Amino acid sequence: MQHGDPLERETRARLTALGFAPAEATALADHFLAAERSGRAGHGLARVSWLEGWPQLPLGQPRQVSAEPGYERWDGEGALGYLVLEAIVAAQVASPPARARLVVAERAFPTGMLGHWTRRLAEAGLVAVCTATSPPRLGHPDGGPKLAGTNPLSIAIPSAAGPPLVADVSMANHTYGEVLAGLVREEELAPFGGEQAYKAFALAVGLQLLVEALTAAEGYGAVLLLARPERDPLPAFRELAAGVRLPGERR
Amino acid sequence: MQHGDPLERETRARLTALGFAPAEATALADHFLAAERSGRAGHGLARVSWLEGWPQLPLGQPRQVSAEPGYERWDGEGALGYLVLEAIVAAQVASPPARARLVVAERAFPTGMLGHWTRRLAEAGLVAVCTATSPPRLGHPDGGPKLAGTNPLSIAIPSAAGPPLVADVSMANHTYGEVLAGLVREEELAPFGGEQAYKAFALAVGLQLLVEALTAAEGYGAVLLLARPERDPLPAFRELAAGVRLPGERR
Repeated sequence: MQHGDPLERETRARLTALGFAPAEATALADHFLAAERSGRAGHGLARVSWLEGWPQLPLGQPRQVSAEPGYERWDGEGALGYLVLEAIVAAQVASPPARARLVVAERAFPTGMLGHWTRRLAEAGLVAVCTATSPPRLGHPDGGPKLAGTNPLSIAIPSAAGPPLVADVSMANHTYGEVLAGLVREEELAPFGGEQAYKAFALAVGLQLLVEALTAAEGYGAVLLLARPERDPLPAFRELAAGVRLPGERR
Repeated sequence: MQHGDPLERETRARLTALGFAPAEATALADHFLAAERSGRAGHGLARVSWLEGWPQLPLGQPRQVSAEPGYERWDGEGALGYLVLEAIVAAQVASPPARARLVVAERAFPTGMLGHWTRRLAEAGLVAVCTATSPPRLGHPDGGPKLAGTNPLSIAIPSAAGPPLVADVSMANHTYGEVLAGLVREEELAPFGGEQAYKAFALAVGLQLLVEALTAAEGYGAVLLLARPERDPLPAFRELAAGVRLPGERR
């Protein structure tokens, strides 16, 4: 990221105008511009306009509530979810686990493109898995109330021989960003999978309850698992996949 | 499970005839019969006939290789994968984590219906997430080599007020059990999701590499995360879902 890039400067200026501190505005701009570059515009600059429309922005500071070997819990404390994950990722990179660590983030919304955070952990040499909840927008394919958020699951794998592989999959057929952009009506949001959409529904429900069971406070949250790899499977995998577009690679 | 049930007795007898010790045969029969009862025949009794056709059965004993706060690694040591997970689950229930634990199982194949193992952990009050790898049978929806196993993901959530909720979703459109039963040709196996099958492909690849990166030994394996819940979201969720068939409930 070139901090002199005009779009990046403008984005940071819009965010500082909303009350974010310079470091926060930079972290947010990094996320939104990374989303634009990776073709996920629904998590990109449209979200700056979206934030500009909030009657009141959450400007709190995330706080580590609990830390034990292999476990941390954080409370968003009224911070924007993006910045809760930013604080958590920075803390993990600064102090990675000896083996593995489960990190629970409560009151963290919205959390954006989860692959942005797992990628950074993988770039620091860690295997990372992350999910997060959001307002209920997915119902059972056979009908009934909206029961689960679009609840993405991201998995990032580091490699000594190249960039990480980053999978980042929402359980929905469309992004909420497409709804915000007027491309899709909110009622059209459903679990992905067509005739087998009950599978994505089951995953969305499982991830929803996973986050809810692990967070002490009500509200949307995130769960992050990180671990040191025992080996580097990516070079052989990429060789086998020669020519196939792998998750996280640009179209 | 009534151990006097004729089908259960017969199943155990067939398994002890293959060389399994009585406790092993009971654990295997429990798994196969649970799969039959839950409508997942592909993981059920057909697998006993399948095992009967193996030229040599793996009859080793799983071994805990490493144990640290929040982390364990096990080696199947030539045991059947089902019995590796059986040993791991029994050890976790006997000695649950203070907060959370990542358990890695290397050289563990086949691992069967993962919900069988996560359900038992949830019945012991733990949140449990499990995935496992298997021979590459899924390619990118646009074509290319088979790159990932059907790699299921199971999530089980305990509740003080009723049975656990158990999601257990394979990334494939068919089960390999259906192939074994002659209902589907192996070439028809593909990521689920129709037009959005690239999503299930991305998850299958991410889960494949997650297991590979975390296991020190080559071969198929499993990764299990367990944690103590902070709260019990299931009663309110079930009330909201009234009438909707939730993951893990019988059709």
